[in-house]
Amino acid sequence: MPEDAPRSKIEGTRRLGANIVFYDRYRESREEIATHLARKRQATLVPSFDDYDVIAGQGTVGLEIIEDAQAKSVELDAVLVCCGGGGLVAGTATAIKALRESVAVFSVEPEGFDDTARSLAAGERVSVDPAARSICDALLTPIPGELTFPINLALLDGGLVVSDEEVRSAMAFAFAHLKLVLEPGGAVALAAVLAGKVPTQGRQMAIVLSGGNVDPELASDVINPG
Amino acid sequence: MPEDAPRSKIEGTRRLGANIVFYDRYRESREEIATHLARKRQATLVPSFDDYDVIAGQGTVGLEIIEDAQAKSVELDAVLVCCGGGGLVAGTATAIKALRESVAVFSVEPEGFDDTARSLAAGERVSVDPAARSICDALLTPIPGELTFPINLALLDGGLVVSDEEVRSAMAFAFAHLKLVLEPGGAVALAAVLAGKVPTQGRQMAIVLSGGNVDPELASDVINPG
Repeated sequence: MPEDAPRSKIEGTRRLGANIVFYDRYRESREEIATHLARKRQATLVPSFDDYDVIAGQGTVGLEIIEDAQAKSVELDAVLVCCGGGGLVAGTATAIKALRESVAVFSVEPEGFDDTARSLAAGERVSVDPAARSICDALLTPIPGELTFPINLALLDGGLVVSDEEVRSAMAFAFAHLKLVLEPGGAVALAAVLAGKVPTQGRQMAIVLSGGNVDPELASDVINPG
Repeated sequence: MPEDAPRSKIEGTRRLGANIVFYDRYRESREEIATHLARKRQATLVPSFDDYDVIAGQGTVGLEIIEDAQAKSVELDAVLVCCGGGGLVAGTATAIKALRESVAVFSVEPEGFDDTARSLAAGERVSVDPAARSICDALLTPIPGELTFPINLALLDGGLVVSDEEVRSAMAFAFAHLKLVLEPGGAVALAAVLAGKVPTQGRQMAIVLSGGNVDPELASDVINPG
């Protein structure tokens, strides 16, 4: 887990009985560390996104969106999904496009970590600037996944990007109106809609809000600034 | 609406197009004010709890609890419901007891406003001390309803009481672990469980968490105290 992971995530993971190994997200490779640990302990490595089983599992989000839309007789126009390494959006898009080809699927990333948006535009995997920083701690991957990117290149309708300020507004909106606690990375898709990054007038959209591991200090600053 | 209602409730109500008339909850009677207004404007009065239609409507909470328990194959032992004037718990208990007579139903009130708990114990309607205060702004009714109390006396298994401090802990728990925003009055049933006011070991319970109209100042103070 990155040394700068939210305390709420660290404590929640510990409470579930895990032994946590920390690393420096800007200088070390978690993939190398995890591969080494798994080998030493004869453990099974579960990658966070660049793995077909993980992508397929995350694709159940897409199945649930289509099921819910059907149950509510909603004709979906678009689906917005938060994006770090691109596993969640790859799986979701695979399910959505298989069942409703006409539904547009967009990835949403924080400014500075818009590697998927820029890679989609370039048609090849592009890295982020190593100096980039964002409050969206769960989405700070440096480059799209080797397995996720070809899927996203084939299926996504585009990559949206939101600023940290837009993310904070979306967290405050979720708190005030949806009564939901969102972590920064979990609020990017909502932020894209609220900040007008996609046309919404007359359109029916599904927005994935995923992740509520936010520390009390940041949360209270977001809902009650100044 | 009471003058000291949470700003989030006032603003939310206004956003829905309402014309809000304020009153002093410790010196004026909202029932009298509302009856007068309804007569003057030939409007229909919708009471907040002491009304059979309102009680029946709130009883759908009980129907949903039984449906959900059935869908999850849960054998419920008890149901805890927040209680102001007693309409929500009266309706919920009516539905629960009709479908599952053996399930215990408890009202939960804030300290100082435990009129239902004390009335249940006394077998008759008892008022609160007019000097009582609590952060649970939605539950500050001075005496059980004329229509709700006979129902609650017949059906409830007891009245539980929680302190403001226990309520604050429950709000913080909901924020950290359930990722839900609760207002003080909406957190009393959760507070009763967390504070050990009912035996929980080996028991399956449904807890009603109702209401998220909490102002940012109180919420940020609760989740990030000091």
